[in-house]
Amino acid sequence: MRLLSEDNIDDIAIGAAILGSGGGSDPYIGRLMAREAIRKYGPVALYRLEELDDEDLIVPAAGMGAPTVIVEKLPAGDDLVRAFYALGKYTGQMPCATMSIECGGMNSIRPIYLAARLGIPVVDCDGMGRAFPEIQMTVLTANGISASPFAMSDERGNVLLMDAVSNKWIEVFARSCVMHMGAVGAIALYAATVKQLKEAAIHGTITLAEEIGKTVRNARRKEMNPVDAVREAVGGYLAFRGKVSDVERRVSGGFAKGSAQMTGSGRFEGRALSLYFQNEHLVVRVDGKYVATTPDLIAVLDAETAVPITTEALRYGMRVAVIAFPCAPQWREPAALKLVCPRYFGYDVEYVPVEERFN
Amino acid sequence: MRLLSEDNIDDIAIGAAILGSGGGSDPYIGRLMAREAIRKYGPVALYRLEELDDEDLIVPAAGMGAPTVIVEKLPAGDDLVRAFYALGKYTGQMPCATMSIECGGMNSIRPIYLAARLGIPVVDCDGMGRAFPEIQMTVLTANGISASPFAMSDERGNVLLMDAVSNKWIEVFARSCVMHMGAVGAIALYAATVKQLKEAAIHGTITLAEEIGKTVRNARRKEMNPVDAVREAVGGYLAFRGKVSDVERRVSGGFAKGSAQMTGSGRFEGRALSLYFQNEHLVVRVDGKYVATTPDLIAVLDAETAVPITTEALRYGMRVAVIAFPCAPQWREPAALKLVCPRYFGYDVEYVPVEERFN
Repeated sequence: MRLLSEDNIDDIAIGAAILGSGGGSDPYIGRLMAREAIRKYGPVALYRLEELDDEDLIVPAAGMGAPTVIVEKLPAGDDLVRAFYALGKYTGQMPCATMSIECGGMNSIRPIYLAARLGIPVVDCDGMGRAFPEIQMTVLTANGISASPFAMSDERGNVLLMDAVSNKWIEVFARSCVMHMGAVGAIALYAATVKQLKEAAIHGTITLAEEIGKTVRNARRKEMNPVDAVREAVGGYLAFRGKVSDVERRVSGGFAKGSAQMTGSGRFEGRALSLYFQNEHLVVRVDGKYVATTPDLIAVLDAETAVPITTEALRYGMRVAVIAFPCAPQWREPAALKLVCPRYFGYDVEYVPVEERFN
Repeated sequence: MRLLSEDNIDDIAIGAAILGSGGGSDPYIGRLMAREAIRKYGPVALYRLEELDDEDLIVPAAGMGAPTVIVEKLPAGDDLVRAFYALGKYTGQMPCATMSIECGGMNSIRPIYLAARLGIPVVDCDGMGRAFPEIQMTVLTANGISASPFAMSDERGNVLLMDAVSNKWIEVFARSCVMHMGAVGAIALYAATVKQLKEAAIHGTITLAEEIGKTVRNARRKEMNPVDAVREAVGGYLAFRGKVSDVERRVSGGFAKGSAQMTGSGRFEGRALSLYFQNEHLVVRVDGKYVATTPDLIAVLDAETAVPITTEALRYGMRVAVIAFPCAPQWREPAALKLVCPRYFGYDVEYVPVEERFN
């Protein structure tokens, strides 16, 4: 166990946004919320799964919706508390701790905010090791853990509880309702015991995010190249450097969907990149050739500072570097891969691990 | 208290379908379900509110969705049991009895089916005295009774629970989800004590439906004019006789919406009727002039037999009589009227009681 204070939050948010692969929402807002909560309620205990009792019940908490809308509607946080308590009440057992369901600038931080407010610990793990747009897209699903019971609340005070026959059905009903919540809701889901999570979750991702965030910060101080420092820290590949020449984006079906075009510079001079996203970056092509696809991670970084740029923040004229890096190995198992492979999202390409594409 | 046996079901279904004002679903299917349940589990006790303890908890149960789809998908009934139990579990108190939320060929009968299966009583009252398309459209809403907690289930086994800040929000979320249930779901809602219902509900509507149904049956036997007999039994007015010349219908937003045109015969020769519906008949015009509007009741009856024709059963060429009759007086109070007045549904006309329009 270690305590997370205000000082840890910035590094975690930046690192988690890089792991978020363009999704999981902008790190700035989550950071503000969590810093304020820690200032008010004190530091948050971060536990490794190994430090908890096997029978302890853990309930992940997150925000759901279109990130383009989330940045316009600063959440008060009461919705998250309501969803978490509703789930506890429904299961008849109050959770011992919370955790992230995905890595992302906001969805790694929201559980820390919740933990500060409620005085409970956060567990150092998550369900994706990155961010994905749909509820059932977790390694927990692939390991037979149910997203039900699922609780959802909005800024108005509405509370929905769902007990569905599959995790995909939770996605269907919750997505339909979140659109009526103004495209933003707070959710609690995938209640699981420590024993289940030891086998199924992706371990240590809060600490990993913090280390990546620290790398970005230190590289800036030491006047290293921050993009290279991040690429090394995540064990990844430089897929592109250049300028954003076009961004097409729409909110559709409760998601922020779209694509971006970039023109190369430096050793990528004369080359063109296309990036496709649905809340998260899903596939990237250079000169028409796929260089990385889901579930491997694709991060768009500011070319100078390596600060991650989420899908909703991407703008014409930005100078960026695109790095691609391997997903958590659990995603490469067949049961997990079929949940998030390129074809699931409608891209006519097989998944090939990013290491093979670059070697 | 009296016992409802198989013999009572047909009269109740026919009478309730007349009160259903075109909605509440086709009487034939509900009748089959309830008769089978009574045959299997025995007769159902029907109680008047006055016979129950003030503190007894009553939970109405119903089907929700587009009636055009309900007739295509014969419900197994397990969805209704699941929704009812889910609500009981959520409130922490098992209901003593069930009741209808609206009058209708199916929604008056479904609670009888449920009561037979679970061995609980049915209460002789409902929340509308007719049928209306949206969840919040009850005199219970006007009397401050919450539709939350709200439970919903489908044929697959999905269960949703909703606790919303208003009854209209239940409508929004539930309507959105029912579309993903293939436009049909089973619901339990408006949990209330007998004390609350004594003040707020519309009393005696199962018995009223049965009397109207009996009138139809007896008129046929005695070779009276069945349409006249029904018109007298409900205290209504003959708005039209004629032939259906056109029906326009679509499933939109989870509702069956549309309109029908009729050409007059007999003393209506040379005249034209337009009927507009959204699951239920809402307004009717003869030669362009409104003759009856929501919340007053509009029933389309087979011209010969007076068997009610629901909106989804209406077809070109049918020979029909249209009768209009006064709604329950509770609907004419301002708080109730604003929930269901013609303007709420988008018709540019003030509500004028049907008695005034015909006198």
